[in-house]
Amino acid sequence: SMDGAPPPPSPAGLSAFVAVSQLLGLTLLATTGAWLGRYRGGVAWHSPLQFNAHPLCMVLGMVFLQGDALLVYRVFRHEAKRSTKALHALLHGLALVIALVGIIAVFESHRAKGIPDMYSLHSWCGMAAFVLYLLQWLLGCGFFLFPGASFSLRGQYKPQHIFFGVALFILSIASCLLGITEMLLFKISDSYSHFVPEGVLANTLGVMLVAFGLVVGYVVTREEWKRPPLAEELALSMDFKTLTEGESPGG
Amino acid sequence: SMDGAPPPPSPAGLSAFVAVSQLLGLTLLATTGAWLGRYRGGVAWHSPLQFNAHPLCMVLGMVFLQGDALLVYRVFRHEAKRSTKALHALLHGLALVIALVGIIAVFESHRAKGIPDMYSLHSWCGMAAFVLYLLQWLLGCGFFLFPGASFSLRGQYKPQHIFFGVALFILSIASCLLGITEMLLFKISDSYSHFVPEGVLANTLGVMLVAFGLVVGYVVTREEWKRPPLAEELALSMDFKTLTEGESPGG
Repeated sequence: SMDGAPPPPSPAGLSAFVAVSQLLGLTLLATTGAWLGRYRGGVAWHSPLQFNAHPLCMVLGMVFLQGDALLVYRVFRHEAKRSTKALHALLHGLALVIALVGIIAVFESHRAKGIPDMYSLHSWCGMAAFVLYLLQWLLGCGFFLFPGASFSLRGQYKPQHIFFGVALFILSIASCLLGITEMLLFKISDSYSHFVPEGVLANTLGVMLVAFGLVVGYVVTREEWKRPPLAEELALSMDFKTLTEGESPGG
Repeated sequence: SMDGAPPPPSPAGLSAFVAVSQLLGLTLLATTGAWLGRYRGGVAWHSPLQFNAHPLCMVLGMVFLQGDALLVYRVFRHEAKRSTKALHALLHGLALVIALVGIIAVFESHRAKGIPDMYSLHSWCGMAAFVLYLLQWLLGCGFFLFPGASFSLRGQYKPQHIFFGVALFILSIASCLLGITEMLLFKISDSYSHFVPEGVLANTLGVMLVAFGLVVGYVVTREEWKRPPLAEELALSMDFKTLTEGESPGG
């Protein structure tokens, strides 16, 4: 805190929920890696294993990083709004780049194997999630990061940005569940119904994706855990102070 | 309105969004019926077509009726809270009964064909959605319909009831998308990638399920469209008046 006073503590349950979300997120990545490594031959670019980069990139980008980008306003609740915003945009931007790599992996792997693109419900939902996520990111940068938009315009767009942000996070998770189901029915359709370990592991990954969505969704929608407006106003007045006193490192 | 004054009009956009949700909901049912009727031989109990009752019941119960039950507090925003609550519980109850019929259809059809139960991610997500939905309904009746719970206990549980209500509605829709993907890969795995009409129709059903979820989700979470507390308090005081003056038709 810039004024030397210790920041007020986070609400009791919030830290626990955020910790659980991060444990779940890391377990998601480990489980995806374990599935691909143990049962699907691992991941490699420019090889028959290129497809396997797809699930790994999508879980990392469209779920873990997208979810963490939603959490930054709850985790950094007493930092300057400007820095928190920049981190929010940066994490979403990183998620988009990693998701793009994952999408390239599946298109190149389809071309190498002669499989048509974009015919399945998974591809329709996943591509819609990615394109709308990119659009949401561009709109978010335009309204909130660049200085053009007025306060009243920002205030009007903000609830839409939040609603569609949560909706796209949910659609991304749903697309992962569809991808898991497709992959299992393509690869182990004969043994899936006999509860083979690969099927149970991939189902468990699906359940953990739902759990991650639930925990992140609970944290970002809980009224008592919203960023306190007081700190926001303090940060704003501090920004003005910095600007007027010429202390800004970029000024 | 019981006091003779015309009720205040609904917010401008709300009626349009509710109308769109109902059009989408009816189109969902028609599209599910068209898929099953045109490509899957129709629906019949105690026959090889018994399975087809499953998607129809789940879309009707777990999506359309569950969604409409969430909307009643926005649609009947000036009715007595007590009647709106009863309608909310009734629609969810009807949804549960219809979903139970749909679940019996798939278990009986599996038994007739010798297919194992509960091995797929679709079955895990769908069964979790149904069991937690039943639990949520029982808790909702216990806290809000029966007179036992105190006002403070109700106030503490209400945000949890709302969060898990929306979460279960989303999980129900995600389970439908998984079911569509499973059914297409079981029935038309050879032709799905060639954009055959059945595949495109079922994908479109999936997109419409997402759209229904988006519209209902937008209506129930939009701050300006929340039930006005003034009307709620008026209704409450009117209930007291009715009780004390002995005008209640049920008293």
